Amino acid sequence: MKEFWSSRIQGLTPYTPGEQPRERKYIKLNTNENPYPPSPKAVAAIQEAAGSGLRLYPDPEAGELVEALAQVYGVEREQVFVGNGSDEVLAFAFQAFFDPGAAIVFPDITYSFYPVYGAMFGIQCRTVPLLSDFSVPLEPFFEENGGVVLANPNAPTGMELSQDALRSILEHNPSVAVIVDEAYVDFGGTSALPLIREYPNLLVVQTTSKSRALAGLRVGFAFGNANLIAALNCVKNSINSYTLDRLAIAGAAAAVLDEPYFQAQCRKVIRTRDHTARRLGDLGFHVLPSKSNFLFVSHPDRPAGELFQELRENGILVRYFPQPRIGNYLRISIGTDDEMDTLAATMEKLIRKP
Amino acid sequence: MKEFWSSRIQGLTPYTPGEQPRERKYIKLNTNENPYPPSPKAVAAIQEAAGSGLRLYPDPEAGELVEALAQVYGVEREQVFVGNGSDEVLAFAFQAFFDPGAAIVFPDITYSFYPVYGAMFGIQCRTVPLLSDFSVPLEPFFEENGGVVLANPNAPTGMELSQDALRSILEHNPSVAVIVDEAYVDFGGTSALPLIREYPNLLVVQTTSKSRALAGLRVGFAFGNANLIAALNCVKNSINSYTLDRLAIAGAAAAVLDEPYFQAQCRKVIRTRDHTARRLGDLGFHVLPSKSNFLFVSHPDRPAGELFQELRENGILVRYFPQPRIGNYLRISIGTDDEMDTLAATMEKLIRKP
Repeated sequence: MKEFWSSRIQGLTPYTPGEQPRERKYIKLNTNENPYPPSPKAVAAIQEAAGSGLRLYPDPEAGELVEALAQVYGVEREQVFVGNGSDEVLAFAFQAFFDPGAAIVFPDITYSFYPVYGAMFGIQCRTVPLLSDFSVPLEPFFEENGGVVLANPNAPTGMELSQDALRSILEHNPSVAVIVDEAYVDFGGTSALPLIREYPNLLVVQTTSKSRALAGLRVGFAFGNANLIAALNCVKNSINSYTLDRLAIAGAAAAVLDEPYFQAQCRKVIRTRDHTARRLGDLGFHVLPSKSNFLFVSHPDRPAGELFQELRENGILVRYFPQPRIGNYLRISIGTDDEMDTLAATMEKLIRKP
Repeated sequence: MKEFWSSRIQGLTPYTPGEQPRERKYIKLNTNENPYPPSPKAVAAIQEAAGSGLRLYPDPEAGELVEALAQVYGVEREQVFVGNGSDEVLAFAFQAFFDPGAAIVFPDITYSFYPVYGAMFGIQCRTVPLLSDFSVPLEPFFEENGGVVLANPNAPTGMELSQDALRSILEHNPSVAVIVDEAYVDFGGTSALPLIREYPNLLVVQTTSKSRALAGLRVGFAFGNANLIAALNCVKNSINSYTLDRLAIAGAAAAVLDEPYFQAQCRKVIRTRDHTARRLGDLGFHVLPSKSNFLFVSHPDRPAGELFQELRENGILVRYFPQPRIGNYLRISIGTDDEMDTLAATMEKLIRKP
């Protein structure tokens, strides 16, 4: 019993973010950051915004950013919500759409923040075991539930659920909210965004952290029917009216509007990913088919925990989840071509070690 | 019944922030912003941070800012929490320390976000009527409760509760958390910060929005016993690991470390406030004794609602709360000397109007 702690947090186990090392310089392939800088237009917009107006509150509606997203994604402003990173957007969505009582469902292997939100907000969670190839079985999502959460592409597998499969899940769940977390969709995945017109219960969540290289700025967003967006705004305005600061609004809006830069960077990451996947495959790794900016890999001869440690000793950070079913896998973010060459060469050395 | 909305938000009435007008240029005295720009060192730190590293996640512990606050305020790092504006810090504190069941107590006239948090997080609230002079009666805070929240100086009155009175409330409430919201304390108030060593249940919340002129950056902070800070971190890490972006961390740290600039700006605002109070007093206004960067005023001859509208027509925005007990008052933020001269001259014209 922790004195003064509320009962709701007494037993909580918070989320553990990937390491942000400060002691030495690593090739950092552990938190799915973009290896390239954000759009120069975003940086310029931030530097301009910093020079004037910081004494004033931001626009609580972040109109400039909402407008940019509406324009680029071809939706109405009323169909757009923005927040302080997609983690905050997801936390708001859990509070906006899910109730204690009926359990929400998501895969057993997925973004590990979902069960943390469930515990924090008193929402029961039921996990659906992925199949042995880490694909998503559909039938368990057709059973009665209090809501559905799907990362697509999934993390940490990087694998995509087809739009037909997603549509089938939506058809079977007309009375609860279905959240599709598309943090990684821009690296070759297919977005469910067009489906928001058909399904009033579909919320599509995305982020500027990965594909727009703005993990340091904390801007996430969501698309959905105006009624869902109103619910998210109701939650936001009951917690913090100004979740996005002036710099985040200006920088993210400029990044979203710079489509050519965005597309070019995504193509580079995809090319490097596919090349790295082939090289690791040649070294004997089992490499899951990735539509994200990371690879999820396992080697028949070397335990992942050992490789994780040895990579670290060689100056390369990747992510290792010592837990059931995925304890022999490593999640490797896609860096620059040079970084991935070093990774592949180091892996080769480690695999061949007597 | 709003479809797909959770039961917790069905009946919510969110907080209403002060207006951020875009249609015309006003003298903006409605949201307690600082009339002067933030420290040039803060702006420089932001511009530097924007130029490198935005692709990387921020330090989830915001170590640079926590360290700056610990150093300047003479506390340990473990006694410091930072968040995305003091609104977020307060929202986390409500979740960390208050339970449904025992009602928390706060004055009937105070920051209007407190009852919104209560409704959002299912925490019962009991309001204590301020005395007719808007001072805080102590005895009602001695009765059994689930926690205490006090804005000190209070908003929108600007009036301060003495440290003796605060100590007496703390002495009578050893088993619940006592939150003292010091958003406005730097304009001549006395901080309860030294008391955190004596009272393990005291959380002192402050912000960079007012006295450090960074409303646009969204950085709030709290001081308390390490156990209370750990509870806040538990909530934060169960909702959003990275609430502060890289620019906010860098900018706020630089602002906090620039003590001479901070002190000088606060002195200017205090001088202008006291001068304005005298001028409005000379015009017949009842002016509450303010230790904040705003004045709460009432005129015997002119209804506040009318003055509010007429000021607006004259290009001056102030805040008007059409609600019981304070419906004949205006809250006027302290601007520059020129802005306050214009305000006083306009008031004089409006008061003398036939």
